[in-house]
Amino acid sequence: MSSTSHLRSLNINNINPHVKEAKYAVRGELAVRSEEYRAKLAKGNAGLPFEKIISANIGNPQQLDQKPITFFRQVLSLLEYPPLLEHEDVLLNQLGYKSDVLERARWLLKTIGSVGAYSASPGAVGIKDSVARFIEERDGHPSDPKDIYLSAGASSGVNTLLHVICSSPNTGVLVPIPQYPLYTASLAVLDAKCVPYYLDESKGWGTDLEAIKTAYKKAVAEGTDVRAIVIINPGNPTGASLAEEDVKAVIEFAAQEKLVVMADEVYQTNVFIGKFHSFKGVLRNLQKEDPEKYKYVELASLHSVSKGMVGECGHRGGYFELVGFDPEVVEQIYKFVSISLCAPVIGQCLVELMVNPPKEGQPSYPLYKQEWDGIFSGLKKRATALYEAFQEMEGVECQVPQGSMYLFPTINLPAKAVEAAKKEGRSPDEFYAFRLLDATGVCVVPGAGFGQKENTLHFRTTFLAPGTEWVGRITKFHKDFMEEFR
Amino acid sequence: MSSTSHLRSLNINNINPHVKEAKYAVRGELAVRSEEYRAKLAKGNAGLPFEKIISANIGNPQQLDQKPITFFRQVLSLLEYPPLLEHEDVLLNQLGYKSDVLERARWLLKTIGSVGAYSASPGAVGIKDSVARFIEERDGHPSDPKDIYLSAGASSGVNTLLHVICSSPNTGVLVPIPQYPLYTASLAVLDAKCVPYYLDESKGWGTDLEAIKTAYKKAVAEGTDVRAIVIINPGNPTGASLAEEDVKAVIEFAAQEKLVVMADEVYQTNVFIGKFHSFKGVLRNLQKEDPEKYKYVELASLHSVSKGMVGECGHRGGYFELVGFDPEVVEQIYKFVSISLCAPVIGQCLVELMVNPPKEGQPSYPLYKQEWDGIFSGLKKRATALYEAFQEMEGVECQVPQGSMYLFPTINLPAKAVEAAKKEGRSPDEFYAFRLLDATGVCVVPGAGFGQKENTLHFRTTFLAPGTEWVGRITKFHKDFMEEFR
Ligand SMILES: Cc1ncc(COP(=O)(O)O)c(C=O)c1O
Ligand SMILES: Cc1ncc(COP(=O)(O)O)c(C=O)c1O
Repeated sequence: MSSTSHLRSLNINNINPHVKEAKYAVRGELAVRSEEYRAKLAKGNAGLPFEKIISANIGNPQQLDQKPITFFRQVLSLLEYPPLLEHEDVLLNQLGYKSDVLERARWLLKTIGSVGAYSASPGAVGIKDSVARFIEERDGHPSDPKDIYLSAGASSGVNTLLHVICSSPNTGVLVPIPQYPLYTASLAVLDAKCVPYYLDESKGWGTDLEAIKTAYKKAVAEGTDVRAIVIINPGNPTGASLAEEDVKAVIEFAAQEKLVVMADEVYQTNVFIGKFHSFKGVLRNLQKEDPEKYKYVELASLHSVSKGMVGECGHRGGYFELVGFDPEVVEQIYKFVSISLCAPVIGQCLVELMVNPPKEGQPSYPLYKQEWDGIFSGLKKRATALYEAFQEMEGVECQVPQGSMYLFPTINLPAKAVEAAKKEGRSPDEFYAFRLLDATGVCVVPGAGFGQKENTLHFRTTFLAPGTEWVGRITKFHKDFMEEFR
Repeated sequence: MSSTSHLRSLNINNINPHVKEAKYAVRGELAVRSEEYRAKLAKGNAGLPFEKIISANIGNPQQLDQKPITFFRQVLSLLEYPPLLEHEDVLLNQLGYKSDVLERARWLLKTIGSVGAYSASPGAVGIKDSVARFIEERDGHPSDPKDIYLSAGASSGVNTLLHVICSSPNTGVLVPIPQYPLYTASLAVLDAKCVPYYLDESKGWGTDLEAIKTAYKKAVAEGTDVRAIVIINPGNPTGASLAEEDVKAVIEFAAQEKLVVMADEVYQTNVFIGKFHSFKGVLRNLQKEDPEKYKYVELASLHSVSKGMVGECGHRGGYFELVGFDPEVVEQIYKFVSISLCAPVIGQCLVELMVNPPKEGQPSYPLYKQEWDGIFSGLKKRATALYEAFQEMEGVECQVPQGSMYLFPTINLPAKAVEAAKKEGRSPDEFYAFRLLDATGVCVVPGAGFGQKENTLHFRTTFLAPGTEWVGRITKFHKDFMEEFR
């Protein structure tokens, strides 16, 4: 206890213990050190053995190479300053805005009023309409705007859903391991139980129904009230993209055991191999085949403007769609979101633009398509380059990149490195990641931050950073590291 | 229990009971009915006895009359679409942007990179610098950017702080009654105790130190671990603006009892009588006078872009400043905010513009000043008109408007009205508010939504709606209502 703790109301020993328990490594000590290095470099400090920090720890596309989509940002500029619309001639003939940009801005302004006004708590009605139409087209099944809730990024949607689901320390939620730590952190804060189920690294990090069942049964046997299952597809940190059969299997299991399915689909456009299968679409197909069995499946699927070719993290836009929820429960969700008033309205508008982009034949389409394709192929190229580099690194095993923005290789470290880590009071993967940062300026996240099977070690890196020079830096570091601790 | 509740995972009886307990009337049943009326009117339904809905229930300036400040929005338009900055000539000579708009946008872009990138979790460093300088100038005392946390509106700041403060069902937080229901709702969700202290209606809704002490002592005697006191100044729903002596008294009490002071100062520019006294400024003065006594006072003060002449609710920008907190507690606050990644970056930029507006002599200053003064005097004028109308209404007593955006008159209703309300299963103030909405289209919030002393009735109305015609509608309704139930 610090010596002044009795002088204040709050100290580390009396604040909310559940906040204390929560872990969120993506922005933890390593990230903080990388920012310190960045500040040093900005001041011209030459004492460091690198010239640039590569933030491969966060899926933050526009912090790195990714440029915003022109159509999106042009519309947003008009929403922020609508008097520009009185200068149609200047916009069209001098500033390169196309007519569909102006039309969209006018329509959005009609729908929302001002981006400076609170919207309805679940989001602006017109925008929810667009989201529903997008889902309909994506899945080939109807979607009702009343079931759409616009949120401040998917993070806030997850927060809402878990708040309603978790009713006591005995509530359990099945969470994939490795996972994006938002889930374990939120469950910790809510004082509920994370029921981990392991993804199958040997099968490209796919879901393993047996593993899910085992985890579920064990938890139930221990008296846990398991209520929901989280699926991240495409996966973070794993980069996996689920086959339709895997999605089906999860839904069937959820129907059997009456579990809410939370489908985190923020990477739905980041798919390099095969195609994306939405939980909503697959559920509706199953419901057609066997209405009785699947009638009451509760599904919440989440999406975001932060990822994919949109990459607009800073705008904090997202939505979730509710399917099959009890209307009385939905009422409580409505009330809960109303307490924080509404999601950022500019972020809501960006959701609209994401789900309703320029279509073929419209003036903004050619540039939109070119930008979209350019980002997509750039990501794929870098994913492949990184994957190939990992293939050549001693003791490193990496699954083929299928989707999302990450690779999550296994690292087999020498016993001496494990010992050296112990001496520093760090886990070996943490130790490795700190060494990597200190030597190269490349910031990754140790596997421990996402969870990993006992006696395995990993790290997660994004493949967003421009160029491939930094990949070479990792390769060289790794070689030296292995030499040092052999 | 609904007949299907056994078929699903979640039903009203098994979800989080603390979410269920939370009440948030500002966006409750009345607001929902007013939106239904609005939709009917939009479809040309002539069955209603009014032509327009007046949303006097929410402090949402831009939904009503208030226009955004030009300088702010011009800068934001450039941040959304930076290529506009390559057309300096067009911006300056054809679109009416001033040179300081371009400068500010360039500076912000340098500071944040892209508004589409996540910032550091507590906010972009350069923006926190501006906030600290603003506080310094406002208070005449230093402020450290490290103590500033940018948030998604003040709502999210309150959520963060209460999450850290509340550690068990036994934690108590002193909350003024009447209050903005964010506080009671958040405490309910966190399963902590609201310790109500009544504001003194007879003294313009000022704080009454005796009432605070009594509430505190009672709670402590009951075994509650009272840790913090919330002050809303200027007040919502009360419209009060505290004198310096009142602020001092609260701080002295907090120092004595070791309570965290949560100063909700989102209405700090909405002051019509006297001037605003920030808790931070007054605390620093007290610390100069008596360093020993005030050394460890923990203060969190909150501000927002939503209110005042800025009125940019939809942008979800805000900040809180921490003073005197234990560094280990601060670390937990940092971690907690990192779980939701960061506040909306465009909202962060708007915070920067709010705290660092055009200064005298700068090109955008004249228009800025004109807009600011226009909004301020418009609000004051309407507050006065409304106040005067209440003065003339039978059984209505209203305090002189001092600040914020609301009036909160007492309504003395006839016994017959109270009985009629009972028959409908409503409290009399709710009954009155529904009748008012049905008859006039004016939506207010019954006093019950904020808390009120037993056997008193109130309603809260904003004075944001344009014109004063709607005030006349209230007057007429009230007369008829009193006649009907006399
Ligand atoms: C799987 C997953 N879900 C949700 C999020 C939250 O993103 P946001 O809140 O920006 O939408 C992220 C962010 O990295 C993520 O990786
Ligand atoms: C007293 C008070 N605090 C906080 C808020 C939250 O505002 P925001 O989250 O938009 O900053 C409000 C909104 O009405 C308020 O009245």
